[in-house]
Amino acid sequence: MKRIGILTSGGDAPGMNAAIRAVTRKAIHSGLEVYGINYGYAGLVAGDIFKMDESSVGDKIQRGGTFLYSARYPEFAKEEGQLKGIEQLNKFGIEALVVIGGDGSYHGALRLTEHGYNAVGLPGTIDNDIPYTDFTIGFDTSVNTVVEAADRIRDTAASHERTFIIEVMGREAGDIALWSGVAAGAEDVIVPEHDFDVKEIADRLRSSRQRGQKHAIIILAEGVMHADELAEQLSQYGDFYLRHTVLGHVVRGGSPTARDRVLASEMGAYAVDLLMQGKGGLAIGIENGKITSHDMLDLFDSKHHAQMSLYQLGQDLSF
Amino acid sequence: MKRIGILTSGGDAPGMNAAIRAVTRKAIHSGLEVYGINYGYAGLVAGDIFKMDESSVGDKIQRGGTFLYSARYPEFAKEEGQLKGIEQLNKFGIEALVVIGGDGSYHGALRLTEHGYNAVGLPGTIDNDIPYTDFTIGFDTSVNTVVEAADRIRDTAASHERTFIIEVMGREAGDIALWSGVAAGAEDVIVPEHDFDVKEIADRLRSSRQRGQKHAIIILAEGVMHADELAEQLSQYGDFYLRHTVLGHVVRGGSPTARDRVLASEMGAYAVDLLMQGKGGLAIGIENGKITSHDMLDLFDSKHHAQMSLYQLGQDLSF
Amino acid sequence: MKRIGILTSGGDAPGMNAAIRAVTRKAIHSGLEVYGINYGYAGLVAGDIFKMDESSVGDKIQRGGTFLYSARYPEFAKEEGQLKGIEQLNKFGIEALVVIGGDGSYHGALRLTEHGYNAVGLPGTIDNDIPYTDFTIGFDTSVNTVVEAADRIRDTAASHERTFIIEVMGREAGDIALWSGVAAGAEDVIVPEHDFDVKEIADRLRSSRQRGQKHAIIILAEGVMHADELAEQLSQYGDFYLRHTVLGHVVRGGSPTARDRVLASEMGAYAVDLLMQGKGGLAIGIENGKITSHDMLDLFDSKHHAQMSLYQLGQDLSF
Amino acid sequence: MKRIGILTSGGDAPGMNAAIRAVTRKAIHSGLEVYGINYGYAGLVAGDIFKMDESSVGDKIQRGGTFLYSARYPEFAKEEGQLKGIEQLNKFGIEALVVIGGDGSYHGALRLTEHGYNAVGLPGTIDNDIPYTDFTIGFDTSVNTVVEAADRIRDTAASHERTFIIEVMGREAGDIALWSGVAAGAEDVIVPEHDFDVKEIADRLRSSRQRGQKHAIIILAEGVMHADELAEQLSQYGDFYLRHTVLGHVVRGGSPTARDRVLASEMGAYAVDLLMQGKGGLAIGIENGKITSHDMLDLFDSKHHAQMSLYQLGQDLSF
Repeated sequence: MKRIGILTSGGDAPGMNAAIRAVTRKAIHSGLEVYGINYGYAGLVAGDIFKMDESSVGDKIQRGGTFLYSARYPEFAKEEGQLKGIEQLNKFGIEALVVIGGDGSYHGALRLTEHGYNAVGLPGTIDNDIPYTDFTIGFDTSVNTVVEAADRIRDTAASHERTFIIEVMGREAGDIALWSGVAAGAEDVIVPEHDFDVKEIADRLRSSRQRGQKHAIIILAEGVMHADELAEQLSQYGDFYLRHTVLGHVVRGGSPTARDRVLASEMGAYAVDLLMQGKGGLAIGIENGKITSHDMLDLFDSKHHAQMSLYQLGQDLSF
Repeated sequence: MKRIGILTSGGDAPGMNAAIRAVTRKAIHSGLEVYGINYGYAGLVAGDIFKMDESSVGDKIQRGGTFLYSARYPEFAKEEGQLKGIEQLNKFGIEALVVIGGDGSYHGALRLTEHGYNAVGLPGTIDNDIPYTDFTIGFDTSVNTVVEAADRIRDTAASHERTFIIEVMGREAGDIALWSGVAAGAEDVIVPEHDFDVKEIADRLRSSRQRGQKHAIIILAEGVMHADELAEQLSQYGDFYLRHTVLGHVVRGGSPTARDRVLASEMGAYAVDLLMQGKGGLAIGIENGKITSHDMLDLFDSKHHAQMSLYQLGQDLSF
Repeated sequence: MKRIGILTSGGDAPGMNAAIRAVTRKAIHSGLEVYGINYGYAGLVAGDIFKMDESSVGDKIQRGGTFLYSARYPEFAKEEGQLKGIEQLNKFGIEALVVIGGDGSYHGALRLTEHGYNAVGLPGTIDNDIPYTDFTIGFDTSVNTVVEAADRIRDTAASHERTFIIEVMGREAGDIALWSGVAAGAEDVIVPEHDFDVKEIADRLRSSRQRGQKHAIIILAEGVMHADELAEQLSQYGDFYLRHTVLGHVVRGGSPTARDRVLASEMGAYAVDLLMQGKGGLAIGIENGKITSHDMLDLFDSKHHAQMSLYQLGQDLSF
Repeated sequence: MKRIGILTSGGDAPGMNAAIRAVTRKAIHSGLEVYGINYGYAGLVAGDIFKMDESSVGDKIQRGGTFLYSARYPEFAKEEGQLKGIEQLNKFGIEALVVIGGDGSYHGALRLTEHGYNAVGLPGTIDNDIPYTDFTIGFDTSVNTVVEAADRIRDTAASHERTFIIEVMGREAGDIALWSGVAAGAEDVIVPEHDFDVKEIADRLRSSRQRGQKHAIIILAEGVMHADELAEQLSQYGDFYLRHTVLGHVVRGGSPTARDRVLASEMGAYAVDLLMQGKGGLAIGIENGKITSHDMLDLFDSKHHAQMSLYQLGQDLSF
């Protein structure tokens, strides 16, 4: 194998650039040529492909987003799209591929592998919702961004003795809410993975007010409901001086944390190792502190499991 | 004069604690006693008042919010409320007062001055919407918070070639939007102080896309309309891959910037100077780089003027 | 068991307050009483001890340093000191103890355990130099602080095409250097755990300059030598436009990262669990992603091992 | 006039890129062509010059350092150097110039103006040591960086009850120390512009310790002496548990604050206005909140004056 390609797909995440850098440098230092593919699978099909050298990824490790751009491209689910992509791979002499993105983007990677073009997937998403990995690239950064925002909001909550509902991203997964809930010392956390009872939350808020703590922060995962809905439901049980805020795309950007940069670097280098061993159709993860890989087919049959011990921990330490 | 009081009123703002610290330290070093009044005018009326010493304000300069709490208390607009407050001032032997808050809170200060209790006002609000001051305490911090958020959002906007609408606070004033628009390099800024034409914005976005810059950030002051409304209006003129986000209370909190801490310190010390000169009914400002004071009556007849040269500057430097 | 104590010892680290909060809240929610001991073992011996409730640890999770203060107290190594401490434990009715600090502070904890007062240790140090734990409380924060500083320094290094040597803390351990080296994309990392050859580094710098990359960052662990010494040695092999900077105590403070807060919370809660099970003489760690505990005696016979795979990774990805 | 050039000279400062962007965009929107000159006067003489368009300065406003690089080039002080530079200006058809840097770099600008090539200077330095301007581009960012570092160091100082000496940049000027001293709530500030007495500082430290405040932060301007010297002198008067740290180049880099970005944008646009009016030999400043310009000759005869009211303010509010 002489030449590999790299693309980012799905929603951008901090650390994607660190991963691109790692793949590129490691591959070049291993004697390979590396081609960047812009706009994910859309750019692959369109042939928006260019040769990269070591300096292409200089001054990138600290940048948020993805300098290879990302785009949705549902057409790649069909064989017609895949064949067009393969045409481009052939044209550029690209024999194997690294794909950075959510598990949705792994389907395309697996199809290419089945067609003889080994592709390895790196979990790049803030949502942490990918099976067989404890952490995705971008998750640590987004949790820190949420926590920093919650710290700021606590200033106002405490000054005015309000209850704040902070809605955070995460799609169907509660990971961002769980981690940032513990880290921000949230008085309550509501996630899709756990039952909750609005009346009970109201009771806790009321009794904590009576004991003297008059402000509170509730972290709400977007996968459960919207912040304004929760505010409305809560307000039926009393006046908690509610305010709510939605932490939207702010949480998707920013310079990656050290942890995300190191994780991206480790995973990127490992992806090149796997490709050089002639492997494909594998998704890279970090499990129990070790970099691992699993067959993509196994991932599609699995579900990500949030670290629910943090839910209990949050309850134990609040109020 | 032997004893002064201090309270914060209205929405909290970063730097309020630095101002409380400055008033307290300067007053004590000038031989005065200082009493903190919790919860603004509500706490004054309720007698929620305590003696402070130098250490009461230790480790506070860097904190967001206000450790004296803040609360709305419309009852203080009536003489009945004011007389109750005066009763408490008498009870605690407080002869003069520093009030930190928006210009709404200056009305109470003026009433107290008229009753013989000199009160001086410090402009504490992120909105920068107070006449006779170029900057309010908290404004610089909130602008930096918006800019940091816009930098993050640009990561995603650029990665996905989207147009982002960022709605920012400011009530009826466009100052936060104007300053953060220039500082974030926003492609467009929409403020209450200037006409705008949605179709024209759409035309600019379209032509910049055609020239190759495919992402854009629009900063929208909340005083104009809501982000989702603008998104809807814009989408009638074409597909700009729009996303919108509302920067809510995140922008109100956080550790104050150096500028806000220095401004709060200068203003706080100056307020004590004025009170020691037997003056009251004055609002402190910073104009053309100098700390100034004006009769509160003059403020009530005036309007704050945003620095509209920044509007033109933003237009000149974008795209 | 009805009553436990908590103290922090040795150098402060971000996340110590989060750990104190976790121990306190978890213990109170488990029906225990909690006493804070100021100034580590010195305060224990002096009886500087006070009862804490849930609100004692409110608004603390986000603070750097330790609000229980820390101090060196070598006298506690002698039995005389320990007996005085035990006298105070008896006086206050404290039956067991949580000690947060470096492994030096574990010796005192073990002695107390041997005297019948169960003590559990939490690894609180930025240096990450404690055996049987992959991460210490404070390490993640300090690495992020180093990386942020290195990002800033890269601005100047790139603008002036200089080579910067950044000396970082870590005592005898290279962990901070290794992690921040990979995360900052340092061109070279020098740690006590690995040989290095100044001439070789000079050769790499020279050839990278010739290839066109004219600035470089070298992260140097303080355990190897001082930055000015390295600068002098390097300058004997050519002119690399060297500058050097020492990141001192800046790296010890600051609001803890999300990761450090969660780690501190998990470890603190687990410490209470162990004490309630009647256990003592144990040091808590996180290994392969799981919270664990080990006999302190085992720690004293062991050495911490840095994750040396990061050394190779850094070499693979630089230049 | 059809074509202008732009260069950065002297030490880099945050906001230089924002200034380059402003000059470039404003000039292009005014119908001019803009050429970037790399490496300051060295690059001018060497002809390291390239045409810029609007996108050359895209994604630059938030970056620290200068993407046009900077370099010392004492040879430009001689006419021979200047004539070589003029040769290049002629070759590229550049008729006028914007120079961003310290006042040292203004001499070259004035020489070029005298030769018929109008040059306007922008004050780009963190040191704030340029006459006829209240603020330089980069100063606000560096002060905020110092304050953030001091906040972190206070964590450790308070936890261990130490006295910390923080040495900050500023060359012969005390501005960074004065502003950051007030903003960080430093217990003492030592600057070249004001006498000081080590014994007196020691007395203050001792009496504050006796009153119960057992930690302190002293900000020391590098123009006075080095931190280790002060530590040694202070230690002759008692044991203040001293530590000292030097905030070196960390303070020079980083993403510029909102204030610096706006200032750089205003000044850059104004520089183009002046050049289009056929003016040269002018240095731009901000005085009393207004953008101004002065004859460079006047600057060379003048001295910068730090805002010494902050010195007194700092004394009034500490301890």
